[in-house]
Amino acid sequence: MNSNLIQKLIIPSETKIVMLIIDGLGGLSREPGGKTELETAHTPNLDALAERSCMGLTIPVAPGITPGSGPGHLAIFGYDPLQYEIGRGALEALGVDFELGPDDLAARGNFCTVDTDGRITDRRAGRIGTEVNQDLAKLLSTIRIEQSEVFIEPIKEHRFAFVMRSQGLHDALSETDPQRTGVLPLPVHALDPDSEKAACNVNQFISAAKALLTHKHPANMILLRGFAKLPILPGFQERYGLKAAAIALNGMYRGVARLVGMQVLNVTGTTLNDEFATLQKYWRDFDFFYLHVKKTDTFGELGDFDGKVGAIEEVDALIPRLLDLQPDVVIVGGDHSSPSVLKSHSWHPVPVLLYSRYVRADGFTEFGENTCAHGSLGTIPATHIMPIALANAQRIAKYGA
Amino acid sequence: MNSNLIQKLIIPSETKIVMLIIDGLGGLSREPGGKTELETAHTPNLDALAERSCMGLTIPVAPGITPGSGPGHLAIFGYDPLQYEIGRGALEALGVDFELGPDDLAARGNFCTVDTDGRITDRRAGRIGTEVNQDLAKLLSTIRIEQSEVFIEPIKEHRFAFVMRSQGLHDALSETDPQRTGVLPLPVHALDPDSEKAACNVNQFISAAKALLTHKHPANMILLRGFAKLPILPGFQERYGLKAAAIALNGMYRGVARLVGMQVLNVTGTTLNDEFATLQKYWRDFDFFYLHVKKTDTFGELGDFDGKVGAIEEVDALIPRLLDLQPDVVIVGGDHSSPSVLKSHSWHPVPVLLYSRYVRADGFTEFGENTCAHGSLGTIPATHIMPIALANAQRIAKYGA
Repeated sequence: MNSNLIQKLIIPSETKIVMLIIDGLGGLSREPGGKTELETAHTPNLDALAERSCMGLTIPVAPGITPGSGPGHLAIFGYDPLQYEIGRGALEALGVDFELGPDDLAARGNFCTVDTDGRITDRRAGRIGTEVNQDLAKLLSTIRIEQSEVFIEPIKEHRFAFVMRSQGLHDALSETDPQRTGVLPLPVHALDPDSEKAACNVNQFISAAKALLTHKHPANMILLRGFAKLPILPGFQERYGLKAAAIALNGMYRGVARLVGMQVLNVTGTTLNDEFATLQKYWRDFDFFYLHVKKTDTFGELGDFDGKVGAIEEVDALIPRLLDLQPDVVIVGGDHSSPSVLKSHSWHPVPVLLYSRYVRADGFTEFGENTCAHGSLGTIPATHIMPIALANAQRIAKYGA
Repeated sequence: MNSNLIQKLIIPSETKIVMLIIDGLGGLSREPGGKTELETAHTPNLDALAERSCMGLTIPVAPGITPGSGPGHLAIFGYDPLQYEIGRGALEALGVDFELGPDDLAARGNFCTVDTDGRITDRRAGRIGTEVNQDLAKLLSTIRIEQSEVFIEPIKEHRFAFVMRSQGLHDALSETDPQRTGVLPLPVHALDPDSEKAACNVNQFISAAKALLTHKHPANMILLRGFAKLPILPGFQERYGLKAAAIALNGMYRGVARLVGMQVLNVTGTTLNDEFATLQKYWRDFDFFYLHVKKTDTFGELGDFDGKVGAIEEVDALIPRLLDLQPDVVIVGGDHSSPSVLKSHSWHPVPVLLYSRYVRADGFTEFGENTCAHGSLGTIPATHIMPIALANAQRIAKYGA
């Protein structure tokens, strides 16, 4: 396999790689023949970098497939997202910045309402306030299940992340949410023999939770679904020989970075500026930096074309700070497209540029979907980017004699 | 696997997709530096559509491989033609519009001449007239083999399609045609244990045929080869959630469409115009339409450059009728190339355009091999077209969160 090939050929180097991921970067024009968000944005710094770079479009998962953020990031990090699946429960825990470990079984949790017979009357407990949720989560966190630790991380309204930590837990479990009212919550069943212990522990937890919540109407019961452990995958150090750091403000991206063995850096502040300051601060300490920009995706999902344009321009203004550090390789790309006309993630291939002093620069004077479509990288699986970056960083030895 | 991934992510929608397959579309110029048939043709409608589409070239089977019509069509329908093989006998039956089913074992048949010792003297029975063939086929159709139905479908001169219908027939069978004269026809041997029943039944049929034909010199014996059942594959409904219809005039294309679960529509008449009228007539009843144009390939195989140009122009003139229906996604492509300078199918990648309101249009103002070679779809496996079309029709859910 290709990834094993890379691992075998990795050689040490002092070079530094920066991967700037502009979330949901790819877009669409508002009307036929028009410009995309990226093409509309005034990006003199990215355009100047593009002229010295090779360009292309990345396909995160497969042609026609719209990726979630998890698969999109795994792909650009060089991990086949169809091989390494991040389950929904695990993503939920990562999203609240929970440091999910290899012994952790995660699930998406809801508070719900049941009647005196235990039948569900409201699957969302009337969307209780987040403060109520926080109190109840604290209460549930007091439950002790033999040889297991349980963490209840409140999210918004009725939602929480459930994590049970214990050795030997497997995640082939049925869900407790029957997805309708008027019936009892379902017990958890093990879907394979290895998951028996987990099923037993989770059912114990649910019983204890039910008892604790009896008088907490409308949030007098819980539902759990999407049980998942993190996939086990070789980290950046092992696979690429890179001491890697992640700079991201949101939990999920920090979580995925942690999953691939990056050190997640503390960012002082909450702005893009703060993220770039963090890059400068830790510049000497790592070989590889993943820097995540969230706003572009947020505006894309809101359908705010101009907002996304502005967010891209904000990134562009900070590019000189990045280049001042004189990285050997710079990748500017995205985890997926989020065209504002679709108000969602999309299947469209994602613009990418790769700069190093050793690329064959395409010489296009603009970083945009159209120039990238004609770039010399071609339209390629996103998993190809890391090997090309490593090569440009002179970190891959010759194959064969 | 990729195709399973699509199947899992399919969501319902009201959108409509039209796939216009111009058989043998790809071509070559007559002299170096010249224009291909498609580039020579005056195609204002396709050119205008191209400007709003993304374009590319499709590779039906693999680089350098010249596809037959069966594999070429399976590929553009999204089925790996190396995984799903349509044997020659099955293709022969499909070619005469025989409704081949899952219990049918098909073969290519010849009437031949044998001497009094049973040795073959003419493998083609002096190319008997088609009317004689029709009479003899009727005669052979009277043969009854226990628990099997037999169908003999006359083709041209000495050729016929043989179909035996019975449960439990397998197609790992040796051929009876020794490919030379002066020897006896070979008995059928089972090449695996599962095919014993089929071998036994077919040998019984051949004995009965021999007896019936004794006095029918020169067509006093038969030869059978290319035994094949249809591959079993998931249909369009199952795999793509599409209620699909096929509009094609020739048996083989109707047969391949039936194989992938399309409903083959009756076309009143025999012209391209009639095919487009059929599209209009059934527009409300289906989600997906495959419309097949035959003449381009016919002219290509005849080496008639101008004829192929004219056939393409004939298609172009009908494009407005297609667009008037306001399909959400339009694919215009081919099953393979048939350059008239080669007078045959060829290995050349096939031009394709894909229109929807959500494509990033390449903006090329001509539909031709050269523009397609620079299109943003790239030069891609033909099997990628269906996922991309489904994505544009908003029929694929997000993968992962």
